[in-house]
Amino acid sequence: MSLYLEDFHVGFRTSGGSHSLDVAQIKAFASAFDPQPFHLDEAAAEKSLFRGLCASGWHTAAITMKLLTLVEPPITGGIIGAGAELNWPSAARAGDVLRVECEAIEVRPSRTKPDRGMVLMHIRTLNQHDEVRQDLKAKLVVFRRGAA
Amino acid sequence: MSLYLEDFHVGFRTSGGSHSLDVAQIKAFASAFDPQPFHLDEAAAEKSLFRGLCASGWHTAAITMKLLTLVEPPITGGIIGAGAELNWPSAARAGDVLRVECEAIEVRPSRTKPDRGMVLMHIRTLNQHDEVRQDLKAKLVVFRRGAA
Repeated sequence: MSLYLEDFHVGFRTSGGSHSLDVAQIKAFASAFDPQPFHLDEAAAEKSLFRGLCASGWHTAAITMKLLTLVEPPITGGIIGAGAELNWPSAARAGDVLRVECEAIEVRPSRTKPDRGMVLMHIRTLNQHDEVRQDLKAKLVVFRRGAA
Repeated sequence: MSLYLEDFHVGFRTSGGSHSLDVAQIKAFASAFDPQPFHLDEAAAEKSLFRGLCASGWHTAAITMKLLTLVEPPITGGIIGAGAELNWPSAARAGDVLRVECEAIEVRPSRTKPDRGMVLMHIRTLNQHDEVRQDLKAKLVVFRRGAA
């Protein structure tokens, strides 16, 4: 079973995933994409605004994407984002075990494309202490049942 | 030389970076963070909404972050994002050579923290054909001159 636009409604909830974040992952992602001292070096990070090593917000976003691909049941045709609004109330840290909690806040058929619609999904990424590491509102393209 | 809040004004522009995206990078990022067929497999991607292999939007976001860290002069204390609004008008593809073009659209001292302020930066990620692969508005925390 996989989800079509007709399966969503405002208030639809889903959650799942589990990703353990460690220092090696934080530094590897930062080396490739966000090579700033507070993501690469513990001593420098202590002296920064973050007061300790923390993950790039884009790393948290990428892990969130990974967690979303694991949520069951999946969306038919995959998770296709057209846009997003995101906030990082706190930075993810080594030791965090991250999960996602999702709630549909808008469901709308496309005005121009009869085979699809848009679901605005509120996706929170939390750690094991329920600290919110990312607050994301993502516009997802979702196909209607019977679409090609 | 590095930039403080006082160095920004609405209309401030900066640009730079160059990142060549290839199939191997697209698949490596997707394997780690966005393992969906249209980011991993050419044949499956042909049959998808994207009609060909394309990068995860979060990969484009991560590359954009990398490009921002290369822009000169840097922001004092680094690029610290509090939140962002992003759209992907088209997906990045293998063969894209990506760069960023930035423009400050709001500059505001903090009401509560006298040592810093916020710069709302409009950051477009374009390829060599000037196709916009990502349109990002990022809230950056920027320190004032003389802050600790």
